[in-house]
Amino acid sequence: MLNPIFISFEGPEGAGKTSVLNTLIAELKMQFGNDLVSTREPGGNPISEAIREILQPEEDNGMDKRTEALLYAAARRQHLVENILPALAKNKLVISDRYVDSSLAYQGGGRDLGVDNIWQVNQFAIDGLLPDLTIYLDVPVELGLARVNENRQGKIDRLDKESLAFHQKVRKTYLKLQSEFSDRIKIVDATQPLDKVIDDTRTLINHILEEKS
Amino acid sequence: MLNPIFISFEGPEGAGKTSVLNTLIAELKMQFGNDLVSTREPGGNPISEAIREILQPEEDNGMDKRTEALLYAAARRQHLVENILPALAKNKLVISDRYVDSSLAYQGGGRDLGVDNIWQVNQFAIDGLLPDLTIYLDVPVELGLARVNENRQGKIDRLDKESLAFHQKVRKTYLKLQSEFSDRIKIVDATQPLDKVIDDTRTLINHILEEKS
Repeated sequence: MLNPIFISFEGPEGAGKTSVLNTLIAELKMQFGNDLVSTREPGGNPISEAIREILQPEEDNGMDKRTEALLYAAARRQHLVENILPALAKNKLVISDRYVDSSLAYQGGGRDLGVDNIWQVNQFAIDGLLPDLTIYLDVPVELGLARVNENRQGKIDRLDKESLAFHQKVRKTYLKLQSEFSDRIKIVDATQPLDKVIDDTRTLINHILEEKS
Repeated sequence: MLNPIFISFEGPEGAGKTSVLNTLIAELKMQFGNDLVSTREPGGNPISEAIREILQPEEDNGMDKRTEALLYAAARRQHLVENILPALAKNKLVISDRYVDSSLAYQGGGRDLGVDNIWQVNQFAIDGLLPDLTIYLDVPVELGLARVNENRQGKIDRLDKESLAFHQKVRKTYLKLQSEFSDRIKIVDATQPLDKVIDDTRTLINHILEEKS
């Protein structure tokens, strides 16, 4: 029987988060079977999916940035209550693609709402539940965006459309959070070849699995 | 030309808020024409209406109470930015059926999330914009609920279905807020005959109109 473990993945556009997750989730699935729960924000249940639809409209709907921050926090809360907490209660290994640090970086930093303000709203949402480990895939903004443009070929969402300055503020905030909460948030250099990024990430996951076993 | 004036209406189930508002809005419309903007929460624009749909589903969708509080705050923010602030910028008289005190009373008091917690989340949402005047129609819970059951004949929403204890906590919180913020929140005894409730409310509105002219 596992002890409950909660790992979140963070990173800016083009850090390779999806590729890394796909590989490692497949490996962990072999090892843990149904004791692994892989999920992502915003979404995971009907309420959070409905909120996701409001957050990611086909056309710009004039959403205020504080509305956006509150909606992300609402989707996070329901995802926590319906998806993460029940899995942790059954001693599962839960891996979430994005969690609270995304809001701190994107809304707090990128949108200039202030990390402290976004932290307050999200403290209400998460009610103390922080991940055991957060893996932050770091990549310079220009490289990340170049990768995005190469890979997705025109399929971009609202956040991708933001300016370079926005993405630079996001990265700066991630780096600040990482240095401030270095016990929880571990950085992986995502400018390395994908195999090496996966290796480094696997090492971090194995370390927390040993620590918690 | 008016000065901008923002009035919110609050009250528990069965206080007669809708009847009072219908009568007074019609009177004020005669006096102010297009300088009167009458609106209500949650709703008023496509984003807030979409949030309202998530908040008021046909069947219980297992929404966590913190999710609920964050969604009300998100709908409030967008309503403020799209409906209230532009009208105030044009020096209009804005009357909103419900505003921040509803969340303090229903989520903070009724749902036991704590008025301070809900206040923090809503401070982020309203960013300092409080009404010039809040009119609170007060009625004891039993009388209010008896009126609701008589009037709506089975057409009840989720909040109506809450227990007596819930509604008592809501009223207690409204009364506490009123005594704490007695400059802004004025109480009207809604156990009186409807004509008298309307008279008392009209007096309060006329007073703020004079004060702001």
